Amino acid sequence: MIIDCHGHYTTAPSALQQFRDQQLARLKNPALAAAALAHISDAAIRESIETNQLKLQRERGADLTLFSPRASAMAHHIGDAATSHAWTVVCNDLIQRVVALYPQNFAGVCQLPQSPGVPIADSIGELRRCVTELGFVGCNLNPDPSGGHWTAPPLTDRHWYPFYEAMVELDVPAMVHVSASCNPNFHATGAHYINADTTAFMQFIEGDLFKDFPNLRFIIPHGGGAVPYHWGRYRGLADMLQRPPLAEHVMRNVFFDTCVYHQPGIDLLVKVIDIDNIVFGSEMVGAVRGIDPTTGHYFDDTRRYIDALTLAPADKQKIFAGNARRIFPRLDALLTRQGR
Amino acid sequence: MIIDCHGHYTTAPSALQQFRDQQLARLKNPALAAAALAHISDAAIRESIETNQLKLQRERGADLTLFSPRASAMAHHIGDAATSHAWTVVCNDLIQRVVALYPQNFAGVCQLPQSPGVPIADSIGELRRCVTELGFVGCNLNPDPSGGHWTAPPLTDRHWYPFYEAMVELDVPAMVHVSASCNPNFHATGAHYINADTTAFMQFIEGDLFKDFPNLRFIIPHGGGAVPYHWGRYRGLADMLQRPPLAEHVMRNVFFDTCVYHQPGIDLLVKVIDIDNIVFGSEMVGAVRGIDPTTGHYFDDTRRYIDALTLAPADKQKIFAGNARRIFPRLDALLTRQGR
Repeated sequence: MIIDCHGHYTTAPSALQQFRDQQLARLKNPALAAAALAHISDAAIRESIETNQLKLQRERGADLTLFSPRASAMAHHIGDAATSHAWTVVCNDLIQRVVALYPQNFAGVCQLPQSPGVPIADSIGELRRCVTELGFVGCNLNPDPSGGHWTAPPLTDRHWYPFYEAMVELDVPAMVHVSASCNPNFHATGAHYINADTTAFMQFIEGDLFKDFPNLRFIIPHGGGAVPYHWGRYRGLADMLQRPPLAEHVMRNVFFDTCVYHQPGIDLLVKVIDIDNIVFGSEMVGAVRGIDPTTGHYFDDTRRYIDALTLAPADKQKIFAGNARRIFPRLDALLTRQGR
Repeated sequence: MIIDCHGHYTTAPSALQQFRDQQLARLKNPALAAAALAHISDAAIRESIETNQLKLQRERGADLTLFSPRASAMAHHIGDAATSHAWTVVCNDLIQRVVALYPQNFAGVCQLPQSPGVPIADSIGELRRCVTELGFVGCNLNPDPSGGHWTAPPLTDRHWYPFYEAMVELDVPAMVHVSASCNPNFHATGAHYINADTTAFMQFIEGDLFKDFPNLRFIIPHGGGAVPYHWGRYRGLADMLQRPPLAEHVMRNVFFDTCVYHQPGIDLLVKVIDIDNIVFGSEMVGAVRGIDPTTGHYFDDTRRYIDALTLAPADKQKIFAGNARRIFPRLDALLTRQGR
């Protein structure tokens, strides 16, 4: 079984973007009516999924994708808390419809109604709704709702604790995932995403978060940002900062996905990071859509890189499914109910 | 011959920090006298160098270090342009004294008197002084003088062009190097440095800087941040953004050092990045000072990682010295004058 832990609905029917455009227009002109989502038929959803994510899932031989709203479109920095909340509900509900249409192929991961300067406790309600009412199995937590200005406290700050308490209570992990950047220094998928991954990991080294929340679990996407490449630096910094070894201080609670788009990167990831901390992901259809001229295959066809590894079958199975089922207990329960 | 392209004077005599402390005190109380550097004897400089950088240089078998002021102490975000200028001159002059005492072992690379919101043209005078009067061979350019708030324009913006014109005229490269972070999200050496490296590279992909300045040269330190690990992502993004292949678009002008503190990271770097784009560096005595318990050797003893590579001797020599002499023509001229 192959579970792709990192997929976004980047191909939603145009009515979704029209809703967002209405929101943006109303931010400029408050006299306009509140945004309202036009009817989206099941056929339109099927079309958007079957010609994209489901097609690629089948072609590449994956079984199920943990599916969340388009990450770059979360754009928590736009508008206020009400804007973010309305947008988030619409996006999550659409994910739920995809999952309802293809319960064998997708499981839901929710966006959160974060907004700069707004307490994270305000996002608990939507998390709870998505998990308990819509059956979602995880969430995407944005460490920088300002979109590249980094005005929120570090993830180890007590600012975030109310939300972590809810995550632990509901037994769902979070993927640490920023959104679009409104800082011209940071290209979203080429800098902001990767920087956020690296930043979060270093925050976890500096802090003591997992002493307070031993069952809290984070996936750091995009192969852990720069971390595996600089694994010696992070081991050395932990030592300099008199932190415990990373294996016990951070790596009981933090996992990296395989969204690294070339074989040498995946080789490094698997060489330095414990197999138990790696979960299969492709981020498709997403950040990098093209074909690698050096291989003739899609950059984001990450299954090929895992297949090419010299690993025991049991270890590959951990990367492809076993670790995800452990990190996402609600996914495991769901699959078990499906007899898988 | 082995040239370490990345060394900082992290062990300067305490009089330097006292000068800085006077500056900081005066920022709080402008009634205080302007900071003045106490006399530093040659003996004090010799002591600080011979027990640290020179000792390690000899132990590890390097011949010469490109030596610049402590990067984390540049702290361009503190005070104003006058503060930064006075601090920079003192720091650079001290580097010059080290070089004068050990002309076979060190060559100077200067700090710049950058300050948030101040035109970069104001740094040209100090660059010119260091290069033409003090004999320095390069500079460290900070893409984020705000110290973690990223308020300056991207490096490809015309904001920076006057400085680039001076770099080209003087034929000196710059290392892209941020300083301390005053943003609690970013640990300096564990996040801010690595993020800045990644960010700069992506800016170069997005822009057309090297069309305007075909002879401009940058070293991106710390092994290029996250870039080699995500080399597939960057090749794919260049393709998606309809940029030319990276080999011609960026890699004629951009070089990565070897400040990657474990063997698998160096293995990856050399596997995916052209040998002509890699320059030896250790960043010592610096970011990570300890001994790797898995090897028994210092994390930052990067020569060992290069020595362990299966590479043709001519390729190793490029990494150790040849590339640096090409990228730093003034260093090459200096070494040639020394008969090396």
